[in-house]
Amino acid sequence: MHTTTLINGQYQDTILIGDRGLQYADGLFETISVVAGFPCLWERHLARLQLGCNTLKIAPIDFQQLTLDAHKIVANCTKGTLKIIITRGIGERGYKLPSKAKPTSILMLHPPINAPESWWQNGVQAQLCQTPISSNPALAGIKHLNRLEQILARMEWTDPNIAEGLMCNTQGHWISGTKTNLFLVLDNNQLLTPDLTASGIAGVMRSLVLDYAKSQGMKIQQGIVTTKALEQAQSIFLTNALIGMWPVRTLAGINYNIDSIPKALRTICSQAITNQLSI
Amino acid sequence: MHTTTLINGQYQDTILIGDRGLQYADGLFETISVVAGFPCLWERHLARLQLGCNTLKIAPIDFQQLTLDAHKIVANCTKGTLKIIITRGIGERGYKLPSKAKPTSILMLHPPINAPESWWQNGVQAQLCQTPISSNPALAGIKHLNRLEQILARMEWTDPNIAEGLMCNTQGHWISGTKTNLFLVLDNNQLLTPDLTASGIAGVMRSLVLDYAKSQGMKIQQGIVTTKALEQAQSIFLTNALIGMWPVRTLAGINYNIDSIPKALRTICSQAITNQLSI
Repeated sequence: MHTTTLINGQYQDTILIGDRGLQYADGLFETISVVAGFPCLWERHLARLQLGCNTLKIAPIDFQQLTLDAHKIVANCTKGTLKIIITRGIGERGYKLPSKAKPTSILMLHPPINAPESWWQNGVQAQLCQTPISSNPALAGIKHLNRLEQILARMEWTDPNIAEGLMCNTQGHWISGTKTNLFLVLDNNQLLTPDLTASGIAGVMRSLVLDYAKSQGMKIQQGIVTTKALEQAQSIFLTNALIGMWPVRTLAGINYNIDSIPKALRTICSQAITNQLSI
Repeated sequence: MHTTTLINGQYQDTILIGDRGLQYADGLFETISVVAGFPCLWERHLARLQLGCNTLKIAPIDFQQLTLDAHKIVANCTKGTLKIIITRGIGERGYKLPSKAKPTSILMLHPPINAPESWWQNGVQAQLCQTPISSNPALAGIKHLNRLEQILARMEWTDPNIAEGLMCNTQGHWISGTKTNLFLVLDNNQLLTPDLTASGIAGVMRSLVLDYAKSQGMKIQQGIVTTKALEQAQSIFLTNALIGMWPVRTLAGINYNIDSIPKALRTICSQAITNQLSI
C-alpha cells in the first residue's frame, strides 16, 4: 500500500539517523481521518498537538504552515488516514536538548482504516490485557511517541476477531484500549470514562464525546474504572479519531447490550469521521 | 562532530520513515565506550541487548554479525562512543506487529564523552529532579527507546556544573539518574542500589559493580531508596558504561565524603571504560 510522505515540506521518505524522534522517541503524533480532501476534526487535532509541544517544550513550530501542509497532502484523497509526527529534530548524542532547536514535521498519508462494518453496527469483541500502562503525570494525556506499552499489549492477541484490548495501571484501574479511549454507560444513563491525569492519551474523539454529552446535559464522570465497574456497566464503547465509536459486544466473557448507548453519541462519532459534523 | 553510521551493514545516515523505531519507539539501544579499536564490556552490552530483544520479541537478530559490525566500525577509533539501536524494522501503520519481521540494526560511532577530569577525581554535583520515572514491570530493566521521561528530567537544569539529576517513582523512591545508575554506601560499608524490577535501566556498569562487590564479599542490597536513605548515606556514586563511576560530591545541599567509596570499585569502573579490565 502506497504512502505519501511530506517531511519539513518536502516529499521524501527518509529521515536523518540523528533525529531525536528515532534516538529517544522525543516527539508527538496525531492520527487523523481523511474524507473528500479534508482532515476531520483538524482543530481538535491541532489543539492537542500544540498542548503536547508545550508540555515537551518542542518549538518553534509553524502551525499555520503545518495546517497548509496537512491540507495539501490530503487534497486529492477521497478516504484515508493522515498521520503527523513532530519530533524535536536533530540533536547531539545525549538527553540534553540541542542548543539549536529545529523540530521535524512528518506528514504521512495512509490508506483508510480497514475493519468489518459489523464492528460499528453490532459492536466488537474486546479483551483485557496483562501488560500494564504506566502512571506518569508528566506525560499523561498527550500523544507522545513512547508507545512500547501499547505494542506489548497488542502482542497479547492474534485472533483477528478481537478488535481491541483494554489496559490497566499497576493499581488495576482500567485506563484505555491500546488505541482507543474507554467509556462506560452506567445504570442511570451516566457516562464514566477513566481519569487521564496520570496515564493514557486524551483522545480527540473522547473530547468530542465529552463536549457533546455535556451540551446535552448528560451526567459525565471522569474517574477510576475498576474491573467491577466494567462488569456492572450497561454498555461499554471505545472511541478514537479513525473509528469514531465501536460499541463493545463482548468483553472478558460478558455480553453487553449496545442499545443502551445513547443513539446521538453514536451519530456524532459517525459524523465526525466522515466530515459531516454540523456542531 | 562527525558520526559514522552503519545501518543493516551499509554505511548510510538515513532510515525509512516507516521504521517502527521512529513511529512507535519500538526498539532498544546500547551506548558503549570505545578504546583503541575495542568496544568495552562488549559481552555485557550484547547480553543486555539480547535480553531486551527477548522481552520485546524483536527477532531475528544475527548477533554474530552485529558483533562483527561493531568491531568493524570501531576498528580505527582511538577513543569514542559506540551507540547501537535495534528496532523492529519497517511496519504498516498501527501497533500490531508486522507480518514479516525484519529488524533494523543501526551502529553509530560518536566522539568520546566530554566532562571535566575532576568529576571522576573529586566527585560531581547532582540534583533531585521533579519529573517522575514510570513504574512498569513489563519494561523495567531493559534499555528501550522510550526516553521522554529522562528528557523531561534533563530539561530541569541548564547549569553546566550539575552533572546529573536523580529521578524517583510516583511513590517517591529514588530509582536512578537520568543516564546513570545510583549506588549508596551505607555505614557498615554495605552497598544499596535501587531495585529495578518496576522502573529504570539495569546498567552494564551497575552489573559489573554488583558482580565485583559480590566477588569481594561485600554486602549488597537491591531495594527501596528513600530520600532519608540518600541523606543518611556515607557516600553516593553514579555509574554508566561511558563514565564508569562518578562519586557524588554534593546532592540537594548535602556534602558527601567520597573517600568512603571502596577504592577497588573506583578502580574497576575506571578499568572497565579503558578496556583494562583483568577480571
